Amino acid sequence: MEITPWEVKGEVNYEKLIKEFGLKIIDNEILKSFEKKVKNLHFLLKRKIFFAHRDLDVCLNNDFYLYTGRGPSGPMHIGHIIPFYFTKWLQEEFKTNVYIEITDDEKFLVKTNSYEEIKNFANENILDIAAIGFDRNRTFIFRDTEYIKNIYPLALKIAKKINFNTIKAVFGLKSSNNIGIIFFPSIQMVPCFFEKRYCLIPAAVDQDPYWRLQRDIAEKLGYKKSCQIHGKFLPPLIGLKGKMSTSLPTTAIFLNEDEKSIRNKIYKHAFSGGQPSVELHRKLGGNPDVDVSFQWLYFFFEEDDNKLKKIEEDYRSGKLLTGELKDILIEKIVKFLEKFREERDKAKNYVDDYLYNGKLAQLMWETIFE
Amino acid sequence: MEITPWEVKGEVNYEKLIKEFGLKIIDNEILKSFEKKVKNLHFLLKRKIFFAHRDLDVCLNNDFYLYTGRGPSGPMHIGHIIPFYFTKWLQEEFKTNVYIEITDDEKFLVKTNSYEEIKNFANENILDIAAIGFDRNRTFIFRDTEYIKNIYPLALKIAKKINFNTIKAVFGLKSSNNIGIIFFPSIQMVPCFFEKRYCLIPAAVDQDPYWRLQRDIAEKLGYKKSCQIHGKFLPPLIGLKGKMSTSLPTTAIFLNEDEKSIRNKIYKHAFSGGQPSVELHRKLGGNPDVDVSFQWLYFFFEEDDNKLKKIEEDYRSGKLLTGELKDILIEKIVKFLEKFREERDKAKNYVDDYLYNGKLAQLMWETIFE
Repeated sequence: MEITPWEVKGEVNYEKLIKEFGLKIIDNEILKSFEKKVKNLHFLLKRKIFFAHRDLDVCLNNDFYLYTGRGPSGPMHIGHIIPFYFTKWLQEEFKTNVYIEITDDEKFLVKTNSYEEIKNFANENILDIAAIGFDRNRTFIFRDTEYIKNIYPLALKIAKKINFNTIKAVFGLKSSNNIGIIFFPSIQMVPCFFEKRYCLIPAAVDQDPYWRLQRDIAEKLGYKKSCQIHGKFLPPLIGLKGKMSTSLPTTAIFLNEDEKSIRNKIYKHAFSGGQPSVELHRKLGGNPDVDVSFQWLYFFFEEDDNKLKKIEEDYRSGKLLTGELKDILIEKIVKFLEKFREERDKAKNYVDDYLYNGKLAQLMWETIFE
Repeated sequence: MEITPWEVKGEVNYEKLIKEFGLKIIDNEILKSFEKKVKNLHFLLKRKIFFAHRDLDVCLNNDFYLYTGRGPSGPMHIGHIIPFYFTKWLQEEFKTNVYIEITDDEKFLVKTNSYEEIKNFANENILDIAAIGFDRNRTFIFRDTEYIKNIYPLALKIAKKINFNTIKAVFGLKSSNNIGIIFFPSIQMVPCFFEKRYCLIPAAVDQDPYWRLQRDIAEKLGYKKSCQIHGKFLPPLIGLKGKMSTSLPTTAIFLNEDEKSIRNKIYKHAFSGGQPSVELHRKLGGNPDVDVSFQWLYFFFEEDDNKLKKIEEDYRSGKLLTGELKDILIEKIVKFLEKFREERDKAKNYVDDYLYNGKLAQLMWETIFE
């Protein structure tokens, strides 16, 4: 297993990560205090897809804002948007601000793509995020290259507190890495300092090095340590190892994929927990724990716990065949993406609210963080 | 001798620098080709205060623009402004654009000053530079922190081509340096790419590492290698070693110093090439080669070659006493600074032309360098 913000290799051992990164598990106790603050606990919490945290209890007992982001290195796939739906739910429940950083600088620095390509990905990704339906007056989406003037002074203050030895230790960067990516952590940490309130970051666990470093220097700069709630990776179609990857298209379903392609990919590539023949499957049953189609239903596509339980039982017993399970998932994904694209089309009319015109966006463009 | 953009230690051996940095000497041959292009050769050239270059001949035979800068780490002293007067002369002679970068980001990153202090120094320094009288429609003065949005994409393209190993080798930076200063060379190189024409950089020789690195990567990015003309350091008041330093006030005369303080400093601290007594001085004569007062006249304050020659001869013969030599310099400096401050007061009315409103400044604010 190797996990950095730029690479996830091997089977992710979440228990090991909790120990290595010094995280706290999302246990029933914290879920109980969470439950008191919200209408209904989100299924991503109940199912512990968001599995670990730092100081989530502090946020729940205080005022906080939300910060998450997207590195625009390609079209977005289904794994990318799960944290955004969760973030939107948090925004609705706590009526709070959301800041979404589009790290176009980072992706240009670490990918072979041209600056123009990254720019286009950023535009497409921003529309995808806008489709999710965040509060237009409480959400600010910004590209680093566009918002840099407002955050550069604070990024310099952060950079002044961090030397390359620390970057090597925290991110595993080497002297052969380019000087842009060595500096970049200063940029990704800035939004942790956007407000005086606590900052809660719902994101995938591979981003954790940034937050550990932020927590090390926050108080020296006169700010609060940021709080995290960490998500697991939606498993790649081809099996439970690693994370879905834009550069390996058979590992993922993209938000712009059509039904035929989705059907084809899931039939061909979705790793199955079923038996080699229908007869054996009926007799021995399938294994939903390793079946990616079932895992995707569990992670995101079947919100209803009772329906999910029935699918699991039927698959385990052999009543439900792998093809049938795949059909259930395909139907769910196709429906989800149809709705998503409708919203995305509508979002073209109001995406500028998130970027420039909404109440929070306007305030942010007037603010220089020094 | 130790020379980096952030420190100059020991006696500067310019011949050694020429070899180490791979520079060409300003010889009579290049001065002859220069002479053909201008009305009168500037005394800073004739006296070889600007002593070395790279591709100056290429610039003289082609169209070029000028780029220089200032790191606002304190009030400016007389040594700081010499390259600006020379740059202004080049602008007048060649009717070309001048870009002046105020590296407030760099100075915040390497000095112990607060961000606020650096900001104030920057404002004061910009007025000093405005007082010099550059063409208001052909000159753009910009603070990095203010202009960052326009240059950040190009800085990223530069950064992507440079790794930390290179930065260590070229600048002598270490893993214990902060990640801001490690990234900063990308920012200082951007103006070398502002125009399609050749870029000529008149600056002090300690800035050379930036330009060597720029020349290494320029063509890979589809641009021209920059050209340099390098100045010597005005020697510190206290003797010929090192350079004048804001942190050692007795080494320098500042642009805002009053007559009493100037007189006092030069009498007390200016290293003298004279003899221990008037009698001995009359008998043995003084040594203008090590006498800082004479060197300052030579470097900047006595433009008239004949007058300078007479002073040198009289001092060497013992006719001119050290006190008298110091009086000549004091009178020159006081007069110069009186005039300078008048211009500085006037510049308050038009400094915004350099920053925002002049023809070139307007164009630059409309341009994003990607």
